[in-house]
This record gives sequence, structure tokens and C-alpha cells, in this order.
Amino acid sequence: MGEVYLDHVATTPVLPEVLEAMLPYFKDAYGNVQSLHSWGDKAREAVEEARGKVADLIGGVAEEIIFTASGTESNNFAVKGLAMAHQARGKHIVVSAIEHFSVLHSAKTLEKWGFELSEVPVDKYGLVDPKDVARSLRKDTILVSIMHANSEVGTIEPIKEIARVVKQSGAIFHTDAVASAGSIPINVKGLGVDALSLAANQFYGPKGVGALWLKKGVRIIPFLDGGVQEEGRRAGTENVPAIAGLGKAAELAKAEMGARAKRFSALRDKLIAGLPSRIEHVLVTGHPTKRLPGNASFCVEFIEGEAMLMLLNSQGIAVSSGSACTSRALKASHVLIAMGIPHEIAQGSLLFSFGLDNTGEDVDYVLETMPPIVDRLRQMSPLYAKFLKDKSRGGK
Amino acid sequence: MGEVYLDHVATTPVLPEVLEAMLPYFKDAYGNVQSLHSWGDKAREAVEEARGKVADLIGGVAEEIIFTASGTESNNFAVKGLAMAHQARGKHIVVSAIEHFSVLHSAKTLEKWGFELSEVPVDKYGLVDPKDVARSLRKDTILVSIMHANSEVGTIEPIKEIARVVKQSGAIFHTDAVASAGSIPINVKGLGVDALSLAANQFYGPKGVGALWLKKGVRIIPFLDGGVQEEGRRAGTENVPAIAGLGKAAELAKAEMGARAKRFSALRDKLIAGLPSRIEHVLVTGHPTKRLPGNASFCVEFIEGEAMLMLLNSQGIAVSSGSACTSRALKASHVLIAMGIPHEIAQGSLLFSFGLDNTGEDVDYVLETMPPIVDRLRQMSPLYAKFLKDKSRGGK
Repeated sequence: MGEVYLDHVATTPVLPEVLEAMLPYFKDAYGNVQSLHSWGDKAREAVEEARGKVADLIGGVAEEIIFTASGTESNNFAVKGLAMAHQARGKHIVVSAIEHFSVLHSAKTLEKWGFELSEVPVDKYGLVDPKDVARSLRKDTILVSIMHANSEVGTIEPIKEIARVVKQSGAIFHTDAVASAGSIPINVKGLGVDALSLAANQFYGPKGVGALWLKKGVRIIPFLDGGVQEEGRRAGTENVPAIAGLGKAAELAKAEMGARAKRFSALRDKLIAGLPSRIEHVLVTGHPTKRLPGNASFCVEFIEGEAMLMLLNSQGIAVSSGSACTSRALKASHVLIAMGIPHEIAQGSLLFSFGLDNTGEDVDYVLETMPPIVDRLRQMSPLYAKFLKDKSRGGK
Repeated sequence: MGEVYLDHVATTPVLPEVLEAMLPYFKDAYGNVQSLHSWGDKAREAVEEARGKVADLIGGVAEEIIFTASGTESNNFAVKGLAMAHQARGKHIVVSAIEHFSVLHSAKTLEKWGFELSEVPVDKYGLVDPKDVARSLRKDTILVSIMHANSEVGTIEPIKEIARVVKQSGAIFHTDAVASAGSIPINVKGLGVDALSLAANQFYGPKGVGALWLKKGVRIIPFLDGGVQEEGRRAGTENVPAIAGLGKAAELAKAEMGARAKRFSALRDKLIAGLPSRIEHVLVTGHPTKRLPGNASFCVEFIEGEAMLMLLNSQGIAVSSGSACTSRALKASHVLIAMGIPHEIAQGSLLFSFGLDNTGEDVDYVLETMPPIVDRLRQMSPLYAKFLKDKSRGGK
């Protein structure tokens, strides 16, 4: 039995070089960044070095990087902090229908606090149309938050075009790049955004650390109140080892991005081409070309994603059925529903995401393991029985 | 020259056993807790094991532990989340004047959001009088947050007595135990509190992880919106290695607490007895007996704490001048001011905090290093010149 991890969207492992970069800050250079002595100096140097590397990854300036404890925190901070800071100009906020829940639920919280929220739709590929964004903008729109890429279906949004529309209106534009940063080239200046979220554990850095890039001069209200860390913008003792790890992961991601993307997309394309040819009634979700290199997502009709997950797991294959953050809620993905995929088909969502340890043999193993699993589950599926019955009737 | 780290309140190192407990979750068992496969199972087991250990440390139940990314986050979550959840019953909040800024500034943020805030004073030792708390309570008081111990002066508050007063009023009682959890015995049931914050890096666990203990049945509004983690109470991918480290640190702290406290308090008492006998015009701050075992805090008159820090650092001694979270703000500590210490004396604050690597020789080294430093700084001090002048005039 194989041991094939194909769930890199849920989290990547930490690269040995990244862990190596973290280790000194646990036991030896363990000081607090804010301390006015040598231990503090060493910690501060590590954090500032990492700040530069993270800025380099996305074409920003070091001072524009605010370290956080997760992509979720970056998104909460951006959405709530920017809305609170600019509410004197208006209280209208725009998000897309397929945002991660850390953006969507933050926006819903703002709604409870008296803000107004508009949701921009997506097409069948999960693409946001900049024209729809333009139509959603009002005089009192202060903040637009649309993701750079969607982890569940891999679709990469036309952020540059959306940013042009948003910036003409004078609203602030945040993009959640947690799924894409470290995997595909990002240049915040080229994109024209004001704020961007990223998370280390999406590109071989550790869990528990992320960053918010915030364009110089853009005001934000701190989300975490307390000490004077991160120029007074984010309180809490700096997580030095994790930040050092994020820096190293960013450095490696930048250096190896092209080679990684080439490998991942070859694996992705092999699976996307192979699975529907071996199993009937399989839908590839997301955009055919504008998609993350490591992301192959499907809906397998007539069965539930969770059941497939468990049987695949019993064969040593780890995948997910949508976002890890909601997997235990066992609901159909809001992303797939927004793309117009019927509820019963969205239930059969299956997401393979490739990483550095994967090979073509892993894809072969999936292609040989999947058909009997799908057969077995379909034999137990009332939906499939109904489909066959309807089909045989139609055929009469 | 020695290398003497006496700034354990700023942060402790990570114990080798703790790092050992973390390592498997970086590279091998790196799954996402929410994932429905073996990788997720291993991560989940680690988190649940740690949850039990943290609960054990403070006499709580595992399900009552919510993992966070820092003591600061725990305090923001508690103060804002509890106030928001219970605002239908009233909008009045009570804190003490010496709370950590993550509590104090969270309360100030709530003030901006329409809540009312009362600050309870402290006496010259930094002690809160339960009678003052009783006087501050109103019919619309929904939340009281008073710290278990103050890291800057070491004073341990009469939380049990305060809790009794607060619970009679029906308000919710949160205590910030970041400075004390893992160092002195805590039993949440014995104390009678509803919520308690702690942080791993205060007791030889890693940075970037903390917990909020929340009594079963007490409602709270999530602070971080997004996924369904931590029973829907705290979104964001669980930081598995850090949580495993917190668990191990909690286990060790519980097992070794008595022995550690005995060692630390011997060092503390040696310094508290020795320093004022070697240097004139030194004030011991905090309570003489109700204080944290590892905490020796002073005000050295006529000089600034920062200058002493730097000269001590040049001799290989790391200490702090108040809270690490505010050290770079270079303001007199609000804690010392609240204790009635005049501003110019509070400037000379110096805080030694002992840890597992410290020995009696470290104290000897401090006792021999301090007098010439103080002499040198006082020779440059206009305040000291004035004092000598006034004294000589008085003597005429």
C-alpha cells in the first residue's frame, strides 16, 4: 500500500532547510524581539531578515510586511482592520462569493457591526468578472476583498484587471493570496493591490505564521491590541522561529518557483486528463488553464466526497474534499455552489493537490485506485440507482 | 564576561524535551487537524493530547481549552469576545489599572465601540483590593478582567477573593494568567474564574502558542472568524507542533513546579536581599511575599532603566525594564505609576527574572556588576547631582 500525500492545500510539510532555519531560535537565540539586550538583538535580526525575504517573494518593501499567526489572521486583520480604519468614508464592502471563510465570515461580522456587504458572483470556472466588480462599487464602498486564487478549484482570478476597476473608485483593495503566494509569481505593485495575505504552511513553511502585506501609507486599525510589536500594528510576542521559517520558505519558493510549477502542473495535467477517461461522470472543476500548478479538482457524480476520502485513505492516499477549514462541517462547498454546480454534484467534490514529494507514479496509483472505489460507492448510491433507472427508461 | 539571561518574563527558552515533542509534527506527521485522512488523524491526536495536558495544568477539562497563537490573542479573545457575547445584559467592563496592554487596550477598543470601562486601583504593592472591585460593580457590569499575577513586579493578586465578589454580581470573570500559569499552582475551579489566559513561552514552551480556558457553558463570540477549528470558536489551521510543545511544557511545568519554584525563589530572595545592601536608593517593587518565584524587581533611583539595561548587556547580563511588549516605547510603566511610584523613580525600573539555567553564581555576578554601573550612570545624572546638592544644603 502506498503512502501518497496529495493534500498540499490543507498544509504542506516543512522543508528540512526551513526547519534548519528555525531551530536556532528555539533553544539558543531564544530572545524576545522587543528586549533591549543581545538576545533581543539576535531575535530582531532574524525577524528583519525574514521580513526582507517575504517582501522579496511578492515584490514589496520589507516595512510593508506585518507578520501574523496565520492566513486566517491576516484575512481577519485586513478585512476588519481596513474597514474599521476607513469607515468615516463609507460602510460598504465588496467580496466575491468564493472567498475563504476567513474573509467571508469577517465580512459577515462587519455586517453585524453596521457595514453593508455585496457579494460579486463568479462564472462556471470560478472566475470573477471585473465588470461585475465595477457594477458592485458604490460611492460609499471603502473596501473590496477578492482572492488571488481559490484553493478548492485552483482558479486564478484576474486581480490586475479587478484592481484597476477598484482603484478608480478610490476603495481599498485587499487580496487573499494564501492559496497562491509561494506557488505562482506575485508582484504587489504589478497587481495594483493595497493589501495581500499569505501563509507559510502553503509553501513548505511552518504552521502558525503568515503575513499581511500592507502598502505604505494605507491606514489600518490593529486587530490584536496590546504591545508595540510590528510598528504598533500587531501586538503579541513575535514568533521568531516561525517567522525565520517563513522567511526561508519564501526564499526557497522564489528561487524554485518555476521548477516547482513545471513539475506540479505536469502531475496535475496527467491526473486531469486521466481521471475522467477512467471514470464516467467526472467533472473537472475550476478553470482549464488559469489554475494553480498543483491543483486538480473534480466532482465525482452520485457519491459523497467524504466516503471517497475515507476509502482513498484506506489505500494510503490523502486528499481533501474542499477546504480543510470546513471539511468537518460536511456541507457542500460554497465555492462550487457559487460556480453553479448543483448541490448533489458538489457533494462529490475531490481535490488533489501536488507537492514536492509527489511523482508520476503517485498519479498512476491514484488512477488505478480510484475506479474500483468509485464503482463500489456507486453500487451503494441511491442517486446512482435512480440515474441508471432513468437512463434505462430513457433508452426504452 | 558572563552570559547571564535574567529576562525569563520576556520569554523563556524552549526546553529540549519540548522541542523533541514538536519535531515530528514539522516533517513527518505534518497533516492538517481538519483533514479526513491518516495525516489529519495524527495531527488531531497530538492536539487532543496537548489539550488534556494544558487542562491538567490548571485543573480544567480538556474541552474547555481553546488554543490561540499567544497570550495577547487569548486576552484579546477573552475581553472582546466575552464583552460582545454578553452585551445584551449591559455594557460595563471592569479591569485593574495594572493589566497587561493586551487586556487594557482591548478594553479601550471596547470603549470606542460603546462600552463603558472602569479601572480598579492597586495599592503600593500592586495588590487589587476585592472591596475596590465590589465598589466598581454595577447592574450593567458584564465582564471583569483582573490578572492573576503581574510580570513586571511579580505581585500575585487575590483572585479567589475577587472572583467571589464578581460572581455574586453575575458578571463574567476573566483572569490573565500569562505571567503565572506554569510557574505557580493554578486551579480554575478553586479560583472560581470563568476564563483564564496562558502562554507557552512563559514556561519553557514555544512562542506563538497560548490558550484560553473557558468554563463550560460560558458564551463567547469568536475573535478570529473563518473555519470550524476549535469547535468553531477559533478559526485558523491548528499550529500542531506548537500546540504539542505547549502540551509538553504544561506537563513538565506541572511535574516540576514545586522544585522550580523553590530554586527560583531562593535566587530571587538572594538578589532582593543583596542589591539594596550594595546600592543606595534602590527600591524593591511588588509585594514582599505574594510574588512570583522567579521575579525580582527594583527601581534604581536617579537613573533610567534603559541605560542600565545597555550597560548590563555589555557585561553579558540580559534583563528588562518592565514589560517586553512596551520596552521599546520607552515610557514609564503604567504598572509602577498605578502603584504610586513617582514618574522619575519609575524610569529606573529594573526587572530580573530567573529560569532553569540560572545559578547562585549568576546572582553573585549581578551583585558585583551592578554597583559600578549604577555609580557610573549616577555620575552622569542631573537628577542625582540635584539630589546631592539638595542633600548637602540640607546638611548645612
